[in-house]
Amino acid sequence: MKNTFGNSVTVTLFGESHGPMIGCTLDGLAPGISVFEERIAEALTRRRPTGGITTSRIEKDEFQIVSGVYKEKTTGTPLTILISNAAMHSADYENAKRLARPGHADYTAHTRYAGYEDPRGGGHFSGRITAALVAVGEIAKEALRLQGITVGTHIASIAGIADTLLPEDPLALRSTLEALSTLPFAVLDEAQGERMKAAILAAKEEGDSVGGVLETAITGMPRGVGEPFFDSVESRLSHMLFSIPAVKGVEFGDGFALCEMRGSQANDQMTAKNGIVRQLSNHMGGVYGGITSGAPILFRTAIKPTPSIFKPQKTIDIDNYTSAELSLHGRHDPCIVGRAAPVVDAVTALVLVDLLTEAFGEHYLSPTKNLFRLNSDGAIICD
Amino acid sequence: MKNTFGNSVTVTLFGESHGPMIGCTLDGLAPGISVFEERIAEALTRRRPTGGITTSRIEKDEFQIVSGVYKEKTTGTPLTILISNAAMHSADYENAKRLARPGHADYTAHTRYAGYEDPRGGGHFSGRITAALVAVGEIAKEALRLQGITVGTHIASIAGIADTLLPEDPLALRSTLEALSTLPFAVLDEAQGERMKAAILAAKEEGDSVGGVLETAITGMPRGVGEPFFDSVESRLSHMLFSIPAVKGVEFGDGFALCEMRGSQANDQMTAKNGIVRQLSNHMGGVYGGITSGAPILFRTAIKPTPSIFKPQKTIDIDNYTSAELSLHGRHDPCIVGRAAPVVDAVTALVLVDLLTEAFGEHYLSPTKNLFRLNSDGAIICD
Amino acid sequence: MKNTFGNSVTVTLFGESHGPMIGCTLDGLAPGISVFEERIAEALTRRRPTGGITTSRIEKDEFQIVSGVYKEKTTGTPLTILISNAAMHSADYENAKRLARPGHADYTAHTRYAGYEDPRGGGHFSGRITAALVAVGEIAKEALRLQGITVGTHIASIAGIADTLLPEDPLALRSTLEALSTLPFAVLDEAQGERMKAAILAAKEEGDSVGGVLETAITGMPRGVGEPFFDSVESRLSHMLFSIPAVKGVEFGDGFALCEMRGSQANDQMTAKNGIVRQLSNHMGGVYGGITSGAPILFRTAIKPTPSIFKPQKTIDIDNYTSAELSLHGRHDPCIVGRAAPVVDAVTALVLVDLLTEAFGEHYLSPTKNLFRLNSDGAIICD
Amino acid sequence: MKNTFGNSVTVTLFGESHGPMIGCTLDGLAPGISVFEERIAEALTRRRPTGGITTSRIEKDEFQIVSGVYKEKTTGTPLTILISNAAMHSADYENAKRLARPGHADYTAHTRYAGYEDPRGGGHFSGRITAALVAVGEIAKEALRLQGITVGTHIASIAGIADTLLPEDPLALRSTLEALSTLPFAVLDEAQGERMKAAILAAKEEGDSVGGVLETAITGMPRGVGEPFFDSVESRLSHMLFSIPAVKGVEFGDGFALCEMRGSQANDQMTAKNGIVRQLSNHMGGVYGGITSGAPILFRTAIKPTPSIFKPQKTIDIDNYTSAELSLHGRHDPCIVGRAAPVVDAVTALVLVDLLTEAFGEHYLSPTKNLFRLNSDGAIICD
Repeated sequence: MKNTFGNSVTVTLFGESHGPMIGCTLDGLAPGISVFEERIAEALTRRRPTGGITTSRIEKDEFQIVSGVYKEKTTGTPLTILISNAAMHSADYENAKRLARPGHADYTAHTRYAGYEDPRGGGHFSGRITAALVAVGEIAKEALRLQGITVGTHIASIAGIADTLLPEDPLALRSTLEALSTLPFAVLDEAQGERMKAAILAAKEEGDSVGGVLETAITGMPRGVGEPFFDSVESRLSHMLFSIPAVKGVEFGDGFALCEMRGSQANDQMTAKNGIVRQLSNHMGGVYGGITSGAPILFRTAIKPTPSIFKPQKTIDIDNYTSAELSLHGRHDPCIVGRAAPVVDAVTALVLVDLLTEAFGEHYLSPTKNLFRLNSDGAIICD
Repeated sequence: MKNTFGNSVTVTLFGESHGPMIGCTLDGLAPGISVFEERIAEALTRRRPTGGITTSRIEKDEFQIVSGVYKEKTTGTPLTILISNAAMHSADYENAKRLARPGHADYTAHTRYAGYEDPRGGGHFSGRITAALVAVGEIAKEALRLQGITVGTHIASIAGIADTLLPEDPLALRSTLEALSTLPFAVLDEAQGERMKAAILAAKEEGDSVGGVLETAITGMPRGVGEPFFDSVESRLSHMLFSIPAVKGVEFGDGFALCEMRGSQANDQMTAKNGIVRQLSNHMGGVYGGITSGAPILFRTAIKPTPSIFKPQKTIDIDNYTSAELSLHGRHDPCIVGRAAPVVDAVTALVLVDLLTEAFGEHYLSPTKNLFRLNSDGAIICD
Repeated sequence: MKNTFGNSVTVTLFGESHGPMIGCTLDGLAPGISVFEERIAEALTRRRPTGGITTSRIEKDEFQIVSGVYKEKTTGTPLTILISNAAMHSADYENAKRLARPGHADYTAHTRYAGYEDPRGGGHFSGRITAALVAVGEIAKEALRLQGITVGTHIASIAGIADTLLPEDPLALRSTLEALSTLPFAVLDEAQGERMKAAILAAKEEGDSVGGVLETAITGMPRGVGEPFFDSVESRLSHMLFSIPAVKGVEFGDGFALCEMRGSQANDQMTAKNGIVRQLSNHMGGVYGGITSGAPILFRTAIKPTPSIFKPQKTIDIDNYTSAELSLHGRHDPCIVGRAAPVVDAVTALVLVDLLTEAFGEHYLSPTKNLFRLNSDGAIICD
Repeated sequence: MKNTFGNSVTVTLFGESHGPMIGCTLDGLAPGISVFEERIAEALTRRRPTGGITTSRIEKDEFQIVSGVYKEKTTGTPLTILISNAAMHSADYENAKRLARPGHADYTAHTRYAGYEDPRGGGHFSGRITAALVAVGEIAKEALRLQGITVGTHIASIAGIADTLLPEDPLALRSTLEALSTLPFAVLDEAQGERMKAAILAAKEEGDSVGGVLETAITGMPRGVGEPFFDSVESRLSHMLFSIPAVKGVEFGDGFALCEMRGSQANDQMTAKNGIVRQLSNHMGGVYGGITSGAPILFRTAIKPTPSIFKPQKTIDIDNYTSAELSLHGRHDPCIVGRAAPVVDAVTALVLVDLLTEAFGEHYLSPTKNLFRLNSDGAIICD
């Protein structure tokens, strides 16, 4: 299923950069979850390009929930959010229309869709489409919040400039994650954040762009969720993470650094006291054999530098397959790492509500748990 | 679907380490693909622990194809391969039975399955189960071979000791990949391979283990395969790769290294001559917007150090959640990186036949293409 | 997947009767299919209640295609159609709001969604939601038309009054099916149609309703499509047909009548001449072992009488589970059999494009077939 | 997914009539369900052809559970059952090998698989494959039994000779269903059963065959299970039922008979007393808007006459598409209606465990419910 993902809770994504609107349908989430439109608006704003270090293109994310919500709570039937594409400057892309932008999907989309693709602004391949994921992801986050599960992402590095590490203590980690979700530029160390911004501006001045690494943590996730093999927590999360445009790497726990460790360093040893199990470390990022241990889930995501740059580039005319030189104009974000953080949070939350619903049933995330439904006394009988 | 994966071509995995047999069902592959049992046997041997640097446990992989093959060709209906678990030394695991082995899934499986899991040798979580993927993967590789598509993996590093790089030229790359598939220890530079083996033996002598990185390349893959978002080639491959036990990181093209590049360095520029498009570099690993460009697909997989080590480790008794110390005995592989290479090749081949079948139909991979079926002249009519 | 169906071509349905709009996302259909908005409007009109024998509720189906179409052709990415709910007379349902309407889903939805369901007009359970299927189904029908495949449905009976039989000759059948698609009341025998209408009006006058049987035929479907077991053509079609509200039975070919035949009567014998295979009968409805034979596919669908009737009925108050008597007011259709015909056509067309795409690839339905993509000469190579 | 079905609990089917074995993998069922091998053996025996009224072909169903069971309980990981094909009389089919048997899938399979299909005994299309569904279905039935859910099927009619009706009272119905599951020829009225057997023998003597109708009931199913539209209980059940070879019709509740009723007759009115809801009738078969009401689920399945008959039939040579006459020899069952009853029970049980697991989580069907897993006190924390 191409634009639908999930087993028990699914998202279906649609829309193009320059069409009238984009949207997403969230299906299978428990009934009774409160829908706070202002939180959705805030999450969309964090994804939006703003101010000095980002593009000055005005992108106003007006959204409408057209189904699946009644009296400000989820009904349990499909929830569709539409986001208007208010500002369509198709003219900006007129030059790029027939020249494949290097690093973008213009050439591959052209071969994939036999020339019928919507070429305006990257069409369905635009990073803008992720706004719809951010919107429904906020509802998933609210469902997680009711269960004491917190997701948060910080900018681990941009252009090689590193943020400080996340705290190891789960309670401190949780507070940190909650604070991160409100920051427009999600770093723990503000001074390092300023250095990152300087690097972004330096690249911008040269008509170039930079990339970086996002680090995500999840606290409060119950143990025993996930599966060996194809439905491992890592498999499900990475599937979603690699669907975000610009993501080119995903690692869990210490990830690639584990390859240079000895087993005695990498294994997370355990102790138990009064029946409470504790890990002495978390090199594996809280997942063993595809299943959560109850420790924080940790992963990092590699975001490549924005492919839209202003330096001249060699490319091809995709209509007649001849060589050409492309010089982009208009407004493009020299770094999307910070804006990708709410997208990573959103898709993570969507995977978690799917995993929890699959494991514990569609009522696990419901505020009322609907326990009366399990009472067979109420079963209808005929007479 | 927990132990079934794929859209158009699916695999279903079953079995436990110490049960009578493990197996895999491959469904949806085109009819008419030749099945060479000796190649399956060879691939299983490459996954098998052998000789000095690996465990001396004798693990004889006798297999039987019980369905889906007629006259040595695939029929197009489900193909099931069973592999006997000849050597079951349950006694080896008797000590570990109630103590959770750090780095393994013992504890998480116990919480996940409420104590009903098969505890012998890791049960369904054993790396042994991947033998079944290797077996059906070999049939997928044969289907790819008919289309001129080659998959191969080398050991990029073990314990920080790096192999040389793969050649960039696609034809040279293809020859290299074909040669790699026959090697018991898949390195390009034999001298570096010897240093890796020395590092493995050094760890082994200390009762410890090491990890490493595998690098995989695919040549001959048609352009225009894959999807934006959830069915991106990266999403589909990473989903499968992270289902292999011990994989903790996946990166495409230059992966995490892209995060420190400028866009002008990372973008793959293009030229065209006589309608033939050429990339001037391949930093993205042959996938743009989730879709293949026709350039080689490149990715790296992080394999953690073997969790089974002989040093004493702190852990818990999973029956009563009390602290304990675990000292493993028996025979365990101090490094599984080399043995993981045929597993990575197999799951890669399985994802590729799935992507190709989905894109071009179930007859694309068939040797006869079954073109006559599209001829409406032969349609039955009633009279 | 609750509101998403299909393997290679999927539909995702959303919306409630009295929400701002309903809609459907069609994903995976080939690029390049022409989208004729006027045909969609006509199909929606056939589903709309009109005139004497149906409800006089004015239900204007204004729709907007918001994604997946560029220059009036499908792009191959998700195609979403939104249909406005112009006329929301919530007041009509005020009385029924807390009393479960017998034959409707009010009570079961209330237990299923723990009281969070949208109760207005049946919410997501409303037959109105099928308008979205009719809209995207029309695009599927256009894709089939390009391949010479025709789908059509007639009213086989209403209230026991039977229409004449469909012609057996495939060419005559095809012309008949094409004509049926344009009729507001799809009967072959107008006189019988008048008797049906009289029966509907008689029921209406008594505040009651009637049901009937729809008979559908498909011509031009290639042989060799479908699967043994779970993806049999019958399984896939029946899955979709039973998702239409009010459908309570589905039979293929002679269906239940086969149960009283001998094998010698039921088997469809065959002959061949110049390599052209002919069936001597079509009792099985063109499907053998789950796979099409090339003969017309034939099935019948049982549509129950409209549950909304004006006679007083015993029911319960779903808020406190006490007995009550319900007297419905407002405007309700005394027979939905005729209006269900375009819905059956639509879901049939959606299943067929899914089956064909799965079998022959996503380009099979494309007008250009995109054959150049299979040409390996054009593959990108790096240098 | 061609030979895999289910959302949360899946079955994957493999094997051919004359291969070494057939089998089925059941995945996603709760851990801790007791596996009684003798019950599986009994269910297989009910499906087996025996004695006068059926074929005298000796078909001994020796089976082995090779994974997913530990200490006689399900582990929660994939459970595979293999059934040996002891008696392979390929010679019986030698004559039929190149002539398509009318009513069978020989011709359609040949076009579908381009001539690579296993032609012996119908290959993967053989009714024998359903034995594997019966085997895993018995485990599903045990899981349902623990929840007080009973499934049973009687022969409603054979060759037009009708059995008496099932009792309407749910408790009486439950006892009846339990008794039916032990009968070799599942009729309520033995005298009518004898008449059916006489009709079968009469057909057999003429080298012909007969069909019939199976009627299935389910008691104890909780209300509020199922979905509007594509995952309606009717959709899911019919999908599975139509995958059984020889099924050509499915109707729920009064089914096609509803089409001649008025709404006032068809609607199931309700009352409530002390919070207990009662339906006054069950014309809809316990499903409204795709969701269970708690009333018994009722449906009927049309089984066509056995296509293997001994009368000469016109057919084609599938190798060269020329006309031919086929005279079958060997042993064939003149009626499979009775043997299909345990198959219908099995697939019904498989759909029900899938629906329940999806709705209430994978632990709902577990005997321990695993409630401790929901206790967050035990969550691992790092320190």
